[in-house]
Amino acid sequence: MKRILLCLLLISHFAFSDDGYRLWLKYDLIKDVPRREAYARSAQFIALNGSSPILKSAADELQMGLQGLLGKAVPIVSNAGSRTGGIVLSVAFAPAAGAQTLVADGYQLTSRKSGNITIAGKTDSGVLYGAFALLRQLQTGQSVENLSLTSNPKIQYRMLNHWDNTNGTIERGYAGESLWKWYELPATVDPRYRDYARANASLGINGTVVNNVNASARFMTAEYIEKVAALANVFRPYGIRIYLSIYFPAPKTIGGLKTSDPLDPEVRKWWADKTKEIYKAIPDFGGFLVKANSEGEPGPQDYGRTHADGANMLAEALRPYDGIVMWRAFVYKADPKADRFKAAHEEFTPLDGQFDKKVIVQVKNGPIDFQPREPFSPLFGNMPKTPLSIEFQITQEYLGFATHWVYEAPIFKECLETDTYVKGKGSPSGEATVAKVIDGSLHQYAMTAIAGVANTGTDRNWTGNPMAQANWFAYGRLAWDHTLSSEGIADEWIKMTLTQEPSAVKTIKTIMMRSREIYVDYNTPLGLSRPWSGVHFAPEPWQEKSVRPDWTAIYYHRADSIGLGFDRTATGSNALAQYRPEVQKQWNNPETCPLPYLLWFHRVPWTKKLSTGRTLWDELCTRFYTGADSVVWMQKQWAQVKPAIDPAIFTDVTGRLITQRKEAIWWRDSWVLYLQTYSKQPIPASLPKPGRTLEDVKALSEIYKLR
Amino acid sequence: MKRILLCLLLISHFAFSDDGYRLWLKYDLIKDVPRREAYARSAQFIALNGSSPILKSAADELQMGLQGLLGKAVPIVSNAGSRTGGIVLSVAFAPAAGAQTLVADGYQLTSRKSGNITIAGKTDSGVLYGAFALLRQLQTGQSVENLSLTSNPKIQYRMLNHWDNTNGTIERGYAGESLWKWYELPATVDPRYRDYARANASLGINGTVVNNVNASARFMTAEYIEKVAALANVFRPYGIRIYLSIYFPAPKTIGGLKTSDPLDPEVRKWWADKTKEIYKAIPDFGGFLVKANSEGEPGPQDYGRTHADGANMLAEALRPYDGIVMWRAFVYKADPKADRFKAAHEEFTPLDGQFDKKVIVQVKNGPIDFQPREPFSPLFGNMPKTPLSIEFQITQEYLGFATHWVYEAPIFKECLETDTYVKGKGSPSGEATVAKVIDGSLHQYAMTAIAGVANTGTDRNWTGNPMAQANWFAYGRLAWDHTLSSEGIADEWIKMTLTQEPSAVKTIKTIMMRSREIYVDYNTPLGLSRPWSGVHFAPEPWQEKSVRPDWTAIYYHRADSIGLGFDRTATGSNALAQYRPEVQKQWNNPETCPLPYLLWFHRVPWTKKLSTGRTLWDELCTRFYTGADSVVWMQKQWAQVKPAIDPAIFTDVTGRLITQRKEAIWWRDSWVLYLQTYSKQPIPASLPKPGRTLEDVKALSEIYKLR
Repeated sequence: MKRILLCLLLISHFAFSDDGYRLWLKYDLIKDVPRREAYARSAQFIALNGSSPILKSAADELQMGLQGLLGKAVPIVSNAGSRTGGIVLSVAFAPAAGAQTLVADGYQLTSRKSGNITIAGKTDSGVLYGAFALLRQLQTGQSVENLSLTSNPKIQYRMLNHWDNTNGTIERGYAGESLWKWYELPATVDPRYRDYARANASLGINGTVVNNVNASARFMTAEYIEKVAALANVFRPYGIRIYLSIYFPAPKTIGGLKTSDPLDPEVRKWWADKTKEIYKAIPDFGGFLVKANSEGEPGPQDYGRTHADGANMLAEALRPYDGIVMWRAFVYKADPKADRFKAAHEEFTPLDGQFDKKVIVQVKNGPIDFQPREPFSPLFGNMPKTPLSIEFQITQEYLGFATHWVYEAPIFKECLETDTYVKGKGSPSGEATVAKVIDGSLHQYAMTAIAGVANTGTDRNWTGNPMAQANWFAYGRLAWDHTLSSEGIADEWIKMTLTQEPSAVKTIKTIMMRSREIYVDYNTPLGLSRPWSGVHFAPEPWQEKSVRPDWTAIYYHRADSIGLGFDRTATGSNALAQYRPEVQKQWNNPETCPLPYLLWFHRVPWTKKLSTGRTLWDELCTRFYTGADSVVWMQKQWAQVKPAIDPAIFTDVTGRLITQRKEAIWWRDSWVLYLQTYSKQPIPASLPKPGRTLEDVKALSEIYKLR
Repeated sequence: MKRILLCLLLISHFAFSDDGYRLWLKYDLIKDVPRREAYARSAQFIALNGSSPILKSAADELQMGLQGLLGKAVPIVSNAGSRTGGIVLSVAFAPAAGAQTLVADGYQLTSRKSGNITIAGKTDSGVLYGAFALLRQLQTGQSVENLSLTSNPKIQYRMLNHWDNTNGTIERGYAGESLWKWYELPATVDPRYRDYARANASLGINGTVVNNVNASARFMTAEYIEKVAALANVFRPYGIRIYLSIYFPAPKTIGGLKTSDPLDPEVRKWWADKTKEIYKAIPDFGGFLVKANSEGEPGPQDYGRTHADGANMLAEALRPYDGIVMWRAFVYKADPKADRFKAAHEEFTPLDGQFDKKVIVQVKNGPIDFQPREPFSPLFGNMPKTPLSIEFQITQEYLGFATHWVYEAPIFKECLETDTYVKGKGSPSGEATVAKVIDGSLHQYAMTAIAGVANTGTDRNWTGNPMAQANWFAYGRLAWDHTLSSEGIADEWIKMTLTQEPSAVKTIKTIMMRSREIYVDYNTPLGLSRPWSGVHFAPEPWQEKSVRPDWTAIYYHRADSIGLGFDRTATGSNALAQYRPEVQKQWNNPETCPLPYLLWFHRVPWTKKLSTGRTLWDELCTRFYTGADSVVWMQKQWAQVKPAIDPAIFTDVTGRLITQRKEAIWWRDSWVLYLQTYSKQPIPASLPKPGRTLEDVKALSEIYKLR
């Protein structure tokens, strides 16, 4: 391992094409000599009194980071004694008078001139997170003098969910294969697992579900538990616990039982025994994630039982251990007359109060499925007795795979900062935002959790698109502290990863901050949703046939000769009734509903004049064209930062923007030409006509449906 | 690109964990100073008179290699003038009196003291191959004084076939995802493509089929041709031409025609137009590979036409260009009463003479499907009017995926060196080996070709198992010159890739040379075949149900209370009749049939005494146990080379051998316990009993059939 570290250091000292492998943990030599020397004076040693694996990770990371950043070897000593000018790691935390107290995992960085920098935590993990925080200070050029920085995580379980299959594929993965090489484990342990753990620990992520929610029963066999345990051994020194998605019928499938009924005593015993077996192999095992009675996955309803029955059975099995159940609320029925939007609320709110205290219900941020823009799920705020976690999708299933550049922090923030109004229309301090549901402050949840569906894979740079690293980073930073701003996170990430040249930082930040709205404009403006083909790549708003009615595009946009959009007011599905009156008031009037949500909640005539002064049809056309044109703006902005960016990364992103531009026009043309068959309206004169026909763009989409 | 090179050089100068990315093109500094200095005296400059991209690749590779090996920069000059002590690249080849002449792609290395080293070729590619050959001389410690080395390829089309799908998966790939990132191409060009080309060019591979034979019609669309062209642009400077697998019904599927009948004029025009379109984008396009009417893939027989009809239609489309058709002979019917062994011979020999001169028929090495040991396909020698190419499988579909260490050169050589006896029982010079069929010398084929199904993927080290790099290497070296010995190739590969320490070289070579027989012993001894579960990973000799009868295990081994094996003599399927009498004579008598082929051709009673002195049952048991035990021997041998091997590679292989050992015992136990239910014989007393039951091993295999 030392040899690998050495190489990273060497690389940082020489001109070298950046392959992106190091992510934001670059530790390149600081070029500003006075700054570097100032840091060096404060980092003459690392004092570590303790030998736990996590503390050792903290000291090792500091040592490696300082070697790179400062270009000198910094010794690790067991005790600072009377020495000053070093970094002291300490788990014995005594808050100074008036200082903020720490929770588990929290850290405090303090320093005084001619003293030491202290990294203190209540737990080993806190010290580890503090070490990364100190490195981040150095990487982003902050002063380390008179440090007084206390940081506590706002959420307890900060999870990454991997939708990775046993055969190495990743459902909705666009950056190579699964990182986990099940056929080689447990005997062969890829060194990359450790770098994965380092990257997560640097953000404060403390849990990872290694297998797809469409789960394989393999993971409940002794053969695979041994493999999972080998991974857990790598993650443990980085404070990361492993969780498994379970296949609900496993007792029947691999246990040889006649049923998987969660109320059957033998079934309960099977899960209890299985859980015991897992904990024997993985003493810090985190627990189970469950997708049940959802999109064809089996579950307790197959036996006439409820989600709560299923979850509580698993909670019972976990009772002797420090593990939890994360039960997903992503459910909907294949009913052409129903509104999929409403399904989770309908199924889950009646169960509030029925779940075991070890259960967290995991809710996707929006009511449908990770669209480029969704209103928040109406479950948030409406299950006060059940801890709810939020599930975001980091991987770009509906955001252009690994080619389109979409910075997702604004998506996460938009949801987290929305007021659910379950406390009524209160003062600012009384705001009941989604974040306050999730962090437990609203309903005093006993447990809090957040989950992100990972965008990692075996691509050398982990995420395919180098810019998508920012989404992993942003998710992790927000999981720790949802009050951080999208812009601040972007600023950190750019400086740690791409460049510190001020004008380039600014330019890249501007692109990032606009990127999501640009994508929405050419892809799903004004509240449109789900116009994708089968592989979720190509535009297919015309799609009207599928194995399920709610897996067609027309189910969602409902275009006809009159207009467009899904009526979810009282005259339609009345999904809006699932929200509090104050929310309904915002959205239920098409005259005042904010344009980003317009077609989510309303059927709007083509000729209806919107607040922009344009008709719906003209506004749609304008958005599609503006979105596509804005990619050219992104290209021009990016071209300007060339001198400040590693050439390999620059070339890579330049290529992806070319593709994004091409595909944005494809989306624009597909929507405009298709909707025109209903609107019968001309494209506004100020906009150029598409250079092809509807049949042309349809044929292009058909290509991506071929095997 | 220069910056990447620089890093490689830097890495080679420092202690660094080897991640295997550089393959056999390591170019580490030569530690033997006198030898290094001697080389340096002969490599003071590289003279290149010419500017073709391929010549430039040759000079660049030499420059990069010499920089690494000698630790000094070697200039490229346009003309040596009167200077000596350098390397001169020359495409103006005039053979010295009595010297061997060169064919296209051949090269000649010559040197005299106080002169220059000349790398001469008739073509640019010849010079490129010569440059790699000279580097190989240096990498393996050969003298470059008084060089007089002429090398011509024995086969014209040296192909790598990728079974890569459009979604990035690889059918039978065990080293990550497809190298080709279709969603990012053509705008984003992964720098790895170039390193792939370099590795192939270093072996003389000059063609690559980038998509699976179970082909997607996507590749016949303008959208994908543009992507393929971007890859071709990277490969071209390395003398590598791109080929595509075609989906036979494409004229109907994407062309909108009513039929794909190869005799239909519109269909013929569609292919002609499509071919023209491809050549416009890729002027050196190589041609088409076709799997038709095989394992459910459509083909000309769907229209009552023959394989020749189909192939000749494509040949006609290719007529204006320098491209060819490679039509696979891998066909068999789902008939429980038929012998799959016979199908290809039955279908193809009647067509001999009917194929267009642009068609090569591509035949798998054995009559079934890439088993660990197969007799040679009876097509070889029996299609004198049709150029036949041989298709080997490099990827370890039936050889333990990426965990088992199996050096495949002996598999390739065993087939190539077998006498087909189509010239009767002649003198040694009259031997009609499979190699002489393939290299055209037997039937004076106008074209010659060889194909290997690639074992490459996006794993950092390309092949998953570091030792599997040797199989890519060995295939390439044998494709160039099938007379090279397995041992000699292993020696080269070890020295270029792993170590030059003499005793370690010897030890690793010994493991490699025994590895295939060890695998066969625990996996498919005495001519057993196809005992795999669905994913071709776990043992499942008991498998008796499948969608096709010839996709069960019992179809092949035919175990019952009497005995074991497939009777392919006149009393059985009579497949042996497809061979010449001399071959039949070797194999048709169970008393004299070599044991490796015994159960391929005979049903043998359990109690039958074999030439070893043991009964069939006892011999089988002995083989299974010896094979599994031999993995322990491999482990012990490998442990000895630790001081001479990079620690990361050593650890990796050590882990894989642990897995191999475990799985070898699993195979042993599965076979022994299963066959014992028929033989009703005890395991010989000298062997330990399996520590588990048949149900135990079955349950273990079932795990790997779960999704």
